[in-house]
Amino acid sequence: MLDSLSPALDILTDRLHRLPGIGRKTAQRLALFVLRQDEEHVNALADALLRVKRDIHFCRQCFNITEQDICRICRDTRRDQKTICVVEDIVDIFAIEKSNEYRGLYHVLGGVISPLSGVSPADLKISELINRIGNSDVEEILLAINPSTEGEATMIYLSKLIKSPGIRVTRIASGIPIGSHLEYIDDATIGRAIQSRREL
Amino acid sequence: MLDSLSPALDILTDRLHRLPGIGRKTAQRLALFVLRQDEEHVNALADALLRVKRDIHFCRQCFNITEQDICRICRDTRRDQKTICVVEDIVDIFAIEKSNEYRGLYHVLGGVISPLSGVSPADLKISELINRIGNSDVEEILLAINPSTEGEATMIYLSKLIKSPGIRVTRIASGIPIGSHLEYIDDATIGRAIQSRREL
Repeated sequence: MLDSLSPALDILTDRLHRLPGIGRKTAQRLALFVLRQDEEHVNALADALLRVKRDIHFCRQCFNITEQDICRICRDTRRDQKTICVVEDIVDIFAIEKSNEYRGLYHVLGGVISPLSGVSPADLKISELINRIGNSDVEEILLAINPSTEGEATMIYLSKLIKSPGIRVTRIASGIPIGSHLEYIDDATIGRAIQSRREL
Repeated sequence: MLDSLSPALDILTDRLHRLPGIGRKTAQRLALFVLRQDEEHVNALADALLRVKRDIHFCRQCFNITEQDICRICRDTRRDQKTICVVEDIVDIFAIEKSNEYRGLYHVLGGVISPLSGVSPADLKISELINRIGNSDVEEILLAINPSTEGEATMIYLSKLIKSPGIRVTRIASGIPIGSHLEYIDDATIGRAIQSRREL
């Protein structure tokens, strides 16, 4: 058995295989696709990869990604400047923006407090958040951190730190996802949904 | 709703989305992964993409891929020079090499004859195969073309063209795949397996 048809193809397969969710077989299929693709398309993909690393950095104010000093959301004066939504990660901004329910600003923590993983408050953008609140006339901090054990602890930590006269600290609701069935939902979520029940 | 966090990220997402089997969501997830990856890894992936297009071309003899003039298989003098296995595509060489059952040379046609798709014998590497047979002391041509309607027609066409005193033309067997169950196999395959039954 021949171990390899071409070192260049092997290297590309190996590099694609390092991407999340791309298995060995898929990586090989993608590498062969690239081999057959027009040079122009392959160059464009390579450029796009390099450009992402070269041009994107973090917003000086909210730590969202941006190609400028301040991100598009922070620059948008039509957005509600009195509300800051605190999230773990940039992907959460994508998710919240898609819901079309939020028109305020964001603050990306970069994770949650996790003593087991060695993540302390100093590793997150918490002091930056506190400074930001101090330097503006924010009225509401909406904590939209994932409701894991560590996420819950981080929300409690932040709420104690931030709450003060004139600043409301809120959190997004936990409960049964729209369209799902009670029988498939875990106990903790059902318990939380019952605790957070509302008058109709 | 914000339509985009960063043009660079959108371009990369779009480019990744053009790869086969990569949906919009997966493309976005991969783009965000790239954004977080070390620059060194991203550069290596971009280089690997460009290198595949720059360094790989087709073997002058068998039209397998190679980074030299003649591919590794054609250069390997330990392989049986008297047998040529004719395949549609390079991926078929991968598949056959993995089986560890074949030690001869290959010839990549680049497709099958398909009047409906406008592929005529002149579009394939058939004249190159005929010349190659004429210029060497080949004794067997093994047709390992996929047994589709067009593949079958191509094998019949080639066998008529090649068969001559001193040259055997064979084809790989069609039948029930090892490990599968008769009840799940299509009629045509079962019919072929019965036609091709062997004495035990």
